[in-house]
Amino acid sequence: MPSVQPGLYAIVDRDACLARGLEPLAVARAFCTVPLSALQLRAKRATDRDRVGLARAVAAVARAAGIPFLVNDRADIARLAGADGVHLGQDDLPPGSVRRWLGPDRMIGLSTHDLGQVGAAAAEPVDYLGFGPVFATSTKERPSPVVGLDGLRAAVARSAHPIVAIGGIRLEDLPAVRAAGARSVALVSALLDGNPAERAARAVRLLLG
Amino acid sequence: MPSVQPGLYAIVDRDACLARGLEPLAVARAFCTVPLSALQLRAKRATDRDRVGLARAVAAVARAAGIPFLVNDRADIARLAGADGVHLGQDDLPPGSVRRWLGPDRMIGLSTHDLGQVGAAAAEPVDYLGFGPVFATSTKERPSPVVGLDGLRAAVARSAHPIVAIGGIRLEDLPAVRAAGARSVALVSALLDGNPAERAARAVRLLLG
Repeated sequence: MPSVQPGLYAIVDRDACLARGLEPLAVARAFCTVPLSALQLRAKRATDRDRVGLARAVAAVARAAGIPFLVNDRADIARLAGADGVHLGQDDLPPGSVRRWLGPDRMIGLSTHDLGQVGAAAAEPVDYLGFGPVFATSTKERPSPVVGLDGLRAAVARSAHPIVAIGGIRLEDLPAVRAAGARSVALVSALLDGNPAERAARAVRLLLG
Repeated sequence: MPSVQPGLYAIVDRDACLARGLEPLAVARAFCTVPLSALQLRAKRATDRDRVGLARAVAAVARAAGIPFLVNDRADIARLAGADGVHLGQDDLPPGSVRRWLGPDRMIGLSTHDLGQVGAAAAEPVDYLGFGPVFATSTKERPSPVVGLDGLRAAVARSAHPIVAIGGIRLEDLPAVRAAGARSVALVSALLDGNPAERAARAVRLLLG
């Protein structure tokens, strides 16, 4: 598995979708109409049985579109769904354990929120680091402190791994976030506030155009 | 892995322990001073990283005592901790998926709450069924309806698998629960309301004496 490619890292947040009356699988389909560097499924409030069902359905959509698909938090769900990788938080299972399970070919991402975590992650068997929240975010229950564009630049300079910027990023922020050196940019709410396919297409143009 | 043996199935509920000011690992050690049919770790509110750390520590205690150790809900944590099995709820990953993962030698239990679920479980690759709540319980956030001793007898008659009775069972209930045909009886709070080692010893005498 190559590392995360430049461009848009789209996150389907099941709970954020449902809160807007959107069907998560339909949102995943909309996102996959444009070339993404990755698609991630986040389903914090679902049961495990619902998680694996949704992950399998989204995996099929992503596979058909040739887009790498990652499951948030849970390597077991990623494996059962046939996903291309998993995105881990600091409180999830350690990346080393997950790497031994998934083997060398799956992608593993790790969330980081300060330069200490970015430095510590240099030794971890991961393919990229999420770093943020770059701006204030509404889709996390207990967000870490905002790191800002200066923090993002510092993380890019410090990190041994490519950085995926995340957290409260709007479409109009994308040129500045890209200029700060992020390999890819993760969007959640910004893709849902409007037509998801159109928003994703506009984000990709801003990031790769 | 043989199926669950007659006797006491002790559950270390991390959150119930912490609510009483008890250290979960110390409670596990206390339980393991008596012969148990199984020891289960339940840690609903812990992070995954804390879950696997606690599960590894409890696994070592159970292994030293020769007691089968199961992790609640999560087969991935069970594997990482080297547990002997996993206990699944109706909303957890399907037993068939978990069996393929864990292989034939680990124990898999499945919670059931009515005769329909008991009947449906006949085709599942599990080693025993939990059935309950037999009485009103305080350690589940959203408990299923109480089944009572009559419900327990009906489940024992219907089930293709041994039944572990669970839910709100006090020490004084054990003779009646045993008489209803449960293979083993799971206790949570009843072992914490007093000295855990003494309560467990008393429960074992009531169940096997």
